Amino acid sequence: MDLQGFRDEYSPIIRDVLKRQLSTVKIDSLRAAMAHLLGRGKLFRPLLTLAGARAVTGRDCNDLIPYACALELIHTYTLIHDDLPCMDDAAMRRGVSAVHLDHGEAMAVLAGDALFNYAFLVVHRETAPLDPQVRLALLEVMSQASHDVVEGQVLDLEGEGRQLNLEEMRLMHRLKTGALLGACCEAGAVLGGAGDDLRRGLREYGIEIGLAFQIADDLLSYESSEEVMGKSLSSDEAKQKATYARLLGLEEARNELNSKLDGLEPMLNAMDLKDPGLLREIARWAGKRKS
Amino acid sequence: MDLQGFRDEYSPIIRDVLKRQLSTVKIDSLRAAMAHLLGRGKLFRPLLTLAGARAVTGRDCNDLIPYACALELIHTYTLIHDDLPCMDDAAMRRGVSAVHLDHGEAMAVLAGDALFNYAFLVVHRETAPLDPQVRLALLEVMSQASHDVVEGQVLDLEGEGRQLNLEEMRLMHRLKTGALLGACCEAGAVLGGAGDDLRRGLREYGIEIGLAFQIADDLLSYESSEEVMGKSLSSDEAKQKATYARLLGLEEARNELNSKLDGLEPMLNAMDLKDPGLLREIARWAGKRKS
Repeated sequence: MDLQGFRDEYSPIIRDVLKRQLSTVKIDSLRAAMAHLLGRGKLFRPLLTLAGARAVTGRDCNDLIPYACALELIHTYTLIHDDLPCMDDAAMRRGVSAVHLDHGEAMAVLAGDALFNYAFLVVHRETAPLDPQVRLALLEVMSQASHDVVEGQVLDLEGEGRQLNLEEMRLMHRLKTGALLGACCEAGAVLGGAGDDLRRGLREYGIEIGLAFQIADDLLSYESSEEVMGKSLSSDEAKQKATYARLLGLEEARNELNSKLDGLEPMLNAMDLKDPGLLREIARWAGKRKS
Repeated sequence: MDLQGFRDEYSPIIRDVLKRQLSTVKIDSLRAAMAHLLGRGKLFRPLLTLAGARAVTGRDCNDLIPYACALELIHTYTLIHDDLPCMDDAAMRRGVSAVHLDHGEAMAVLAGDALFNYAFLVVHRETAPLDPQVRLALLEVMSQASHDVVEGQVLDLEGEGRQLNLEEMRLMHRLKTGALLGACCEAGAVLGGAGDDLRRGLREYGIEIGLAFQIADDLLSYESSEEVMGKSLSSDEAKQKATYARLLGLEEARNELNSKLDGLEPMLNAMDLKDPGLLREIARWAGKRKS
């Protein structure tokens, strides 16, 4: 299956599962705030999770769909809290108003908390057929990555006070963007009962995708528009945050992106994978995205 | 062992474990914000958890201490997010400044997120000797209660727009305060391998403790001071929120508290418990607290 066929087949399934997962939230106002951004994005994380699982096992891994969606719930919680007035104070996300603008700031805090927690809850509710040790390991991967994301956000915050240098910025993106993509890739190895080496290899592969993704994002902020990106672009610039484009210059940033993308192939080849085709394609998509 | 002896023995142990659990947070500023309120309270939730486990098993359950502390991490995250300017805008908590006043609002959001997630992480890291199914069940109990707490906070928020009636307020407190205390009590039943009936019975017992706790809290807001309580008292009054004292009057609220406390004993007697003494005492403590 090629990437387009894979996206066409799985994107609607993922959107349906996300919708069903939230259907058990009893309070309408909370459910609406939780659902505000959900299913609107490119679903990159759930698709990456399923591609990673196929790479390891060589088969469709539909039993991992609830977990793939749980990682999207976590990503969405981080977007909601990131956009808060006290954080990035962003007005637009995924082509619509930020959650706090449509649902109020207090509800945005609570909707983020609820989405974060629902990620765990749906794993409990919807992965019962899996081996208990696999379920525990999947939950732990999710928690470890979630902590890394918060640490990355703290480094990002500290970068508002003084400009980060290149190494600090790379660490920040590794944590803030890379860690969750690393969890997406590692999940397939956990499901497939792989050893520590393959788990680590896939996690690192996901983190590298995250770094490529972030450089591409930085470049797009200079070359694209809010309409195309569907989110507020002004905030990094206004806060004089460190970006690849600022620290390296546009041309050098483009070179770093290309070298990241080139480096993904040898990483993939060094791992013992049954069907890495989709994983390869989805990684390239991350680095070449236009929005 | 009586309640005083139990508190004297276990409170320092719990404080040490909480401190150790946070020691793995790598960024100093984040760890400081997470630790700001931690270990300062009465440690009611971890103590209740251990008392519940003793009630079910008839023995010290030191293998549950990491989980008991995880529930305190969750409680602390809810306090931090609750005190935010966009929520209750409280200046004082547990005798010190609210987290957002000392560490900034953005860091308070992130420290709450990080504590919430750390609760799960420490269960993964520190309960490995327990049976995998027990660990999964403990994690699920924690997630279910955490969702209930958020729903309770949403109801509380909606109570700022229009005054809740008595039934709505009881449901709000059942979720916001009761659910986590219910999880504390249920955890012992999970550890002891108890069936659904005992799990439900202990969960309901914890929820009732929570309701008694909340009525006592409401009454204290009228009868005590910020100095004694160690937290901001003005906010419920200023926002004209529904309280037992306002909806029932002080005398009727005192009657409801006493009737809740009287009702705990038959609930306890109806359950097949090996050593319920401490659990009984800790429940009475909740209803008779002075701060």
